[in-house]
Amino acid sequence: MFVEDTISTIATAPGEGAIGIIRMSGSLTIKIAETFFRGINGKSARQIASQQVAYGHIIDPDNGQVIDEVLLLVMHGPKSYTREDVVEIHCHGGPVPMKKILALTLQYGARLSEPGEFTKRAFLNGRLDLSQAEAVMDIIRAKTDASLRMAVGHLSGALSDQIRKMRYEILRMIANLEATIDFPEEDIEVLAAQDVRAAVVLLLADVNHLLLTKETGRILREGLETVILGKPNVGKSSLLNALLKEKRAIVTDIPGTTRDVIEEFVNLSGVPLKIVDTAGIRETSDIIEQMGVEKAKEFVVTADLILLLLDASLPLSAEDREVLTMLSGKQAIVLVNKTDLPVLLNLDEVYTYIADTKVLKISVMEGTGLPELEQMIVDMVYGGEIAQKEGAFLTNLRQANLLEQAKYHLEATVATIDEGMPSDCIVIDLKESWDKLGEITGDTVGEDIIDQIFTQFCIGK
Amino acid sequence: MFVEDTISTIATAPGEGAIGIIRMSGSLTIKIAETFFRGINGKSARQIASQQVAYGHIIDPDNGQVIDEVLLLVMHGPKSYTREDVVEIHCHGGPVPMKKILALTLQYGARLSEPGEFTKRAFLNGRLDLSQAEAVMDIIRAKTDASLRMAVGHLSGALSDQIRKMRYEILRMIANLEATIDFPEEDIEVLAAQDVRAAVVLLLADVNHLLLTKETGRILREGLETVILGKPNVGKSSLLNALLKEKRAIVTDIPGTTRDVIEEFVNLSGVPLKIVDTAGIRETSDIIEQMGVEKAKEFVVTADLILLLLDASLPLSAEDREVLTMLSGKQAIVLVNKTDLPVLLNLDEVYTYIADTKVLKISVMEGTGLPELEQMIVDMVYGGEIAQKEGAFLTNLRQANLLEQAKYHLEATVATIDEGMPSDCIVIDLKESWDKLGEITGDTVGEDIIDQIFTQFCIGK
Repeated sequence: MFVEDTISTIATAPGEGAIGIIRMSGSLTIKIAETFFRGINGKSARQIASQQVAYGHIIDPDNGQVIDEVLLLVMHGPKSYTREDVVEIHCHGGPVPMKKILALTLQYGARLSEPGEFTKRAFLNGRLDLSQAEAVMDIIRAKTDASLRMAVGHLSGALSDQIRKMRYEILRMIANLEATIDFPEEDIEVLAAQDVRAAVVLLLADVNHLLLTKETGRILREGLETVILGKPNVGKSSLLNALLKEKRAIVTDIPGTTRDVIEEFVNLSGVPLKIVDTAGIRETSDIIEQMGVEKAKEFVVTADLILLLLDASLPLSAEDREVLTMLSGKQAIVLVNKTDLPVLLNLDEVYTYIADTKVLKISVMEGTGLPELEQMIVDMVYGGEIAQKEGAFLTNLRQANLLEQAKYHLEATVATIDEGMPSDCIVIDLKESWDKLGEITGDTVGEDIIDQIFTQFCIGK
Repeated sequence: MFVEDTISTIATAPGEGAIGIIRMSGSLTIKIAETFFRGINGKSARQIASQQVAYGHIIDPDNGQVIDEVLLLVMHGPKSYTREDVVEIHCHGGPVPMKKILALTLQYGARLSEPGEFTKRAFLNGRLDLSQAEAVMDIIRAKTDASLRMAVGHLSGALSDQIRKMRYEILRMIANLEATIDFPEEDIEVLAAQDVRAAVVLLLADVNHLLLTKETGRILREGLETVILGKPNVGKSSLLNALLKEKRAIVTDIPGTTRDVIEEFVNLSGVPLKIVDTAGIRETSDIIEQMGVEKAKEFVVTADLILLLLDASLPLSAEDREVLTMLSGKQAIVLVNKTDLPVLLNLDEVYTYIADTKVLKISVMEGTGLPELEQMIVDMVYGGEIAQKEGAFLTNLRQANLLEQAKYHLEATVATIDEGMPSDCIVIDLKESWDKLGEITGDTVGEDIIDQIFTQFCIGK
C-alpha cells in the first residue's frame, strides 16, 4: 500500500494561540510550498535542507499579498513522521491566517486530510505498528501522568513487543508441526504435538496475565466512571469539591462534539476519576445534590465505581437502605461521613445490607479519611498488582477482544491435541491465534478496521 | 534594557491538537533543554545547530521516565523571534504531555512567561517596534481577510514607516530652528519660522489623513457592532441567517474570559460585522426575534450600525415609528423587507421620520437586495476612499489618541509661530509632537505603557 497524494491540515489545537501549524505530507509537499513561500534572501522551499527551518513570508500568488510571516520546517522522507516529505508552516496562531494558509495548500494541490491520516500513513509506511498508532491518540488524550506513561510506553512498543514475542513463539510451534507433516511417522507427530501443548499452556499463562490488565488499561485511558450517591446534605458536593480542590486533573475540551462538553477528572495517584456527567463541574455539583433515588438507580447501572455517602450523625433513612441494596455485585465504597459529629448511625445495620462492599469512615469537613479513600480506589484499579503499574496494558476493547479470541484459539489448540488430531488440524488452530494477535499490531488486519481506527483520531494527527 | 532570565510557556492554542509547542527564550534555554532532552543517537540540545530540529525524547531526569516523543527546534539568538536563544519542544498536542514538559522547563530554571512576554522581548531587543508588536496580536485575532491584511501590513512596518517619516520631518524642523537660535539675527529666525510653518501645515494634512483611518482601522480590527431591529416576524432572524449562511466569518473562542463567550462575525467583503451580543448565534437569533422597543433603545446607543427592518406588506406600526425616530444621528440603514409581497407600507411616511438615513428595498426570502446592502455597509466603513483599503491604519485607541495629541501640538506650533514667539518656544511645541508620535512606535514610551500593551496579548506570544 503506497499513498501518492499530498494531504494538508491545521495540526495545532483550534482556537487562538501564539503559534499555529499547517502540516502537509506527500510527494507534492515541497512543490506546493514553493508556490507561496518566499524566504528571506529569496530562499525557496526546495533550497531548505531537511530538518531545517527558514524564516520568510507566505505570499498569495494570485495577488502578491502577504498572508503572514512564518517559519517553514522541511523534513524529507523517510526522516519524517509519515516517512513522506513533510512541510510544516509555523504561522501566527490565529484562525484567519491559519485558514488562509491552509486554503493556499489546498489550492495548489494538497487535499484536506482525514482525521488520523498522518498517523495512518506512518502506519502504512511501516514507521509505527497499529497498537503504537493507537498510543498516539492515547498520549494526546491522556488524563493523568499514569495514563500518559502507559501510552508513551505503548508508543515505544511495550505492548507490540509482547504481542510479537507471542506470535514468534506460535510461528515456531507451527514450523515444528509442519516438519512432522513432511515425515508422517506417528511417533514424531505425537511427540511434537506434546511439545506444542506444553508451549501453548505456557503461552496461555502470558495471555491471561495480559488480559488481567484490560480493566486497568481501560480506566487509565478513559477514566473510572464514578458516581457519588447519598441523601441531600450528606456532603456529596463537599466530597467532590474536596477531591477536585487537591486532585483536579486536566480539563479537556472534546472537539467535534458539542462545545459545552467538558470532562472533569480527579487525579488519584494517576487514576483518572471521571465524575458522573459531562456538563461541567458547577452543574455537576447541583445535579449530585439534587439527585433522587430514581436517578441514582440509573447511575448505579452504568458507573464503574459507586461512592455512597451515609451520614454518621443520623440514623439510616429509607432512602439510604434502598441505595444500599443496589450495591450488591457492584464496585462500591460506603463512606460514613460526618464522623466528627456525635454518631447516631447504626453501622451493624449497614453491614446487613451489603456483602463484601468496603466501608470507610471519613469526615469531609475535617479532611480525614480521604487519603485512605484514595488508596482504596487505587488498589481496586491496579488489583493490588504493583507490577502492572508499568509496561504493557490492553487499553481498548479492540485489543482486549482480539486477545480473547487468540486465547480461544489457543485453548482450542490444546483440545485438538488432546483429541489426538493430526498436526495439520493443530496448525489451523495455531494459525488462527497467530492471526488474531497480528490484528493487534496491525500485521494481519483489513483496510476497513484500519480506517475505523484512524477516524477516531483528532484532526491533523 | 536587557532581560536575563529564561521564560517558558505553551505556545499553541489550549485544548487537543496533533502538535503542541512548549517555547522557551533566554540565556539558559539550551542548558535547560539539555537536562531533559535525549536525541536519537545521543544528540544533546547543545549539539543541534541553529534553525534545526532533532528527533528525540523528553526524559524526566528525576526518574528516567519518558514523557513524550518530540522534535526539538533550536534557534540561537539573534536569529530568533526574541533575538535571544529560543528552543521549541514540539510534542504530542495533549494537555497532559504539554503540561508535564512545561513543568520540567520550570523545574530546571525557566520561569512561566507573562502574556505577550516573548513579543515584549522582541520589542525590547529591537526586533519590532511597538506598533509592529501590536500588529502581532491583530494578526492572531484577525476576523477577516481585510483585517489580516491590515495587521500583516502593520507588522511589516506600514504604519511605523509613516510615523517615522513624520518624526524625521519634525526633527529636521527642530534642527533648522535651533540653528537660528545660535545666530539670533531676527530676520533669519522669522524666515526659518515661516519655513517651519509651511512644513507643519503640510504635515498636518498627512496627520489628518491618517486620522481618517481611525474608524476603519478599529472596525477592521474589532468588528462593526451591528444590531438588527424590527417588529416580530419582520424577518430579523432570516436576515441574520442569510448573512451568516453565505458570509459567516471565523468563530473565535475568547480565552481568559468565560468559556461560553463566542463571538460570531459576518464577513462582508472583509468588513467584520459583529452581530448584537456574545452569547452564540442560536441564542442571538432568539434574542433578536424577541427584542422589544425598550431593549432596542439600549442597542441603538451602543451599536456602530443599526439595521432596521420594516415590513413592506404591512402599514407602519407605532413600534416602527418609535424605532425610526431613534435613528437620527446614528449610522443606520432602513431595510424594507418582504418586497416580494403586495406593498402596503407607505414609504413617504417613512421618509418623514428620517433625515439622511439610507433606505433599501430587499426581500430576504428571495435573496434580493443583499448584495446592495453589503456594498452600502462596505462603503460606510471605508468612507468611499478606495485608497484607504491598503496601507497604514490607526487600529486602536492608543494610537489614535497619540496622533490626536501630536496634531494638537502641531497646531500649537502654528499658533506659536503666528504669535511671533521665538524659536525655542516653537521647538518646545515641535518636540512635544515628536514625543507623541514616538510613543506610537515605542521610541519614546514609558515602561508602564509597554507593560499595559503586552498584558493584552495571549499566553505564549
